[in-house]
Amino acid sequence: MKLTDLGEKEIIKRLTSFLEIGDDATYLRYGDRYIVLTTDMIYKKTHILPGMNWEQIGKLVVTVNLSDIAAMGARPLAFLLSYGGPDIELEEFDRFIHSVDDQCKKYGVKFAGGDTNHTRELTLSGFCLGVTKRPVLRSTARVGDTLAVTGSLGSAALGTDVLLKKLRYQILEIDDVIKRALEPEPRVKEGILLSNYATAMTDISDSLAVSIHEIAEMSDVGIKLSLDRIPISNSAMNLAERLNLDIMDYTLYGGGDYELLFTISEKDFRGIKDRVNATKIGEVTKEGIIAIKNGEEFGIEKRGYEHVVKE
Amino acid sequence: MKLTDLGEKEIIKRLTSFLEIGDDATYLRYGDRYIVLTTDMIYKKTHILPGMNWEQIGKLVVTVNLSDIAAMGARPLAFLLSYGGPDIELEEFDRFIHSVDDQCKKYGVKFAGGDTNHTRELTLSGFCLGVTKRPVLRSTARVGDTLAVTGSLGSAALGTDVLLKKLRYQILEIDDVIKRALEPEPRVKEGILLSNYATAMTDISDSLAVSIHEIAEMSDVGIKLSLDRIPISNSAMNLAERLNLDIMDYTLYGGGDYELLFTISEKDFRGIKDRVNATKIGEVTKEGIIAIKNGEEFGIEKRGYEHVVKE
Repeated sequence: MKLTDLGEKEIIKRLTSFLEIGDDATYLRYGDRYIVLTTDMIYKKTHILPGMNWEQIGKLVVTVNLSDIAAMGARPLAFLLSYGGPDIELEEFDRFIHSVDDQCKKYGVKFAGGDTNHTRELTLSGFCLGVTKRPVLRSTARVGDTLAVTGSLGSAALGTDVLLKKLRYQILEIDDVIKRALEPEPRVKEGILLSNYATAMTDISDSLAVSIHEIAEMSDVGIKLSLDRIPISNSAMNLAERLNLDIMDYTLYGGGDYELLFTISEKDFRGIKDRVNATKIGEVTKEGIIAIKNGEEFGIEKRGYEHVVKE
Repeated sequence: MKLTDLGEKEIIKRLTSFLEIGDDATYLRYGDRYIVLTTDMIYKKTHILPGMNWEQIGKLVVTVNLSDIAAMGARPLAFLLSYGGPDIELEEFDRFIHSVDDQCKKYGVKFAGGDTNHTRELTLSGFCLGVTKRPVLRSTARVGDTLAVTGSLGSAALGTDVLLKKLRYQILEIDDVIKRALEPEPRVKEGILLSNYATAMTDISDSLAVSIHEIAEMSDVGIKLSLDRIPISNSAMNLAERLNLDIMDYTLYGGGDYELLFTISEKDFRGIKDRVNATKIGEVTKEGIIAIKNGEEFGIEKRGYEHVVKE
């Protein structure tokens, strides 16, 4: 049996079968706090979108790692980078590395070191360390909790598709949607605020559907998702309409939106929702993972953006 | 100007120009301790020796990272791994990943997570977190200190050369020397013990010569090295003699020995040397980097094992 027959998620499970947890990041107790650690690797063929420039690549490798720390409700402290790549102009490298530093600074993180190698294809490994009083896991949602998400969904996935399929339209909305795909931001401040209230949390970088399944499975609960409530930006909605694409498909099954999905008591949600720009999109039930639209029930597949490609 | 025109050391400097320090690892104050962080990347073409098996590759990626933490006098706590590689048999992957876990366990480190990608060539990024009361830097050697090194030198470099040149001899010593090249061990216990006494420290993974230059430059001192005192294993000495190779060249300029080079007061050295299996090889002077052999003085070039290769 070959490794990639497993699929990325299963390989990671195998890689991390030594862990006690299956969360966005791992953690260990340290004094009266928890140290939270994560590593995320970016590879040219599978992660870098057509047209992405060096600034955007630098930003992305920081964002994907900060998002994991945010999803644990932790404050990121330090970022390290291993850079493997073919020979490039020094000026390009400098633009890349300044962008990494800028994105770290933006979120109050120390860019604390790195290693480098001459490799045939761009391979970037980021590593982030954070600290929290209370790591928020995927496995601790409670029946009756509100299910909510930060920001708006679908734009990054739609933008990714537009870039991959080289769809070129003279439409105003396209810029906003593509920017969301090329320059996603992590929800660092929101994650820290939510660490005091959320009962369970994860980011939705793979897809909303995958994250819903993971919280439900790991918490041994059900989820009822109200499709009509999912926040979608106007530009994504309009663009999908003009291109005759189903925006709900991108919203449920597309990747690249580094928003936080969390469960929380209804009371706490009302208190915090404006501070973290979050929308209630469903609730935690005893069992079953279903979506509701206009009173009708649908199933939700467990699928999302898989990075593993066969060459 | 191209990136690789700079050379690996200069690229890392550029990559880490945002750091305040130029040590084996970076550190940040946390409560009454320091958190020490490092990342080391291993790439097939530049790091994996011919004949290295999956167990040895797994061991190596842990060792190179633990050695950086040890060189700071810190206790390693957690290790993370990003695995990028072509498709392999699942059984090979399992052997690799168990070897990573075994090497972590051997040094009391938690194998705490990872990421994976399908890449064309094997690219492994390790990340290690450690803790210490007092990080030992390269920049704090004092005039009059003793210069010392743990273990013995030259074997790994000689073994690497034997493997790369495919030298095959029916000589008993070859096994021991090749094992040192294929399965180096980090000096974790020694680093922790030395954190209480060493005035400056680094590992000598690039070469003894490079490390001597770095301590001298960063501490703004000189080094007088006694070539006759450098500890070399019998098997390396004998093998080099039979192959008509200059063992002193491997000892000074070869890489792959993950021993610790440190400076320390003569009094403290006498108290600790047996516990860390260390040998005095010189002393810290006001200026000048020189080697002495049979009363004659030589210069020491700043060169060692450089991983960057042009394709």
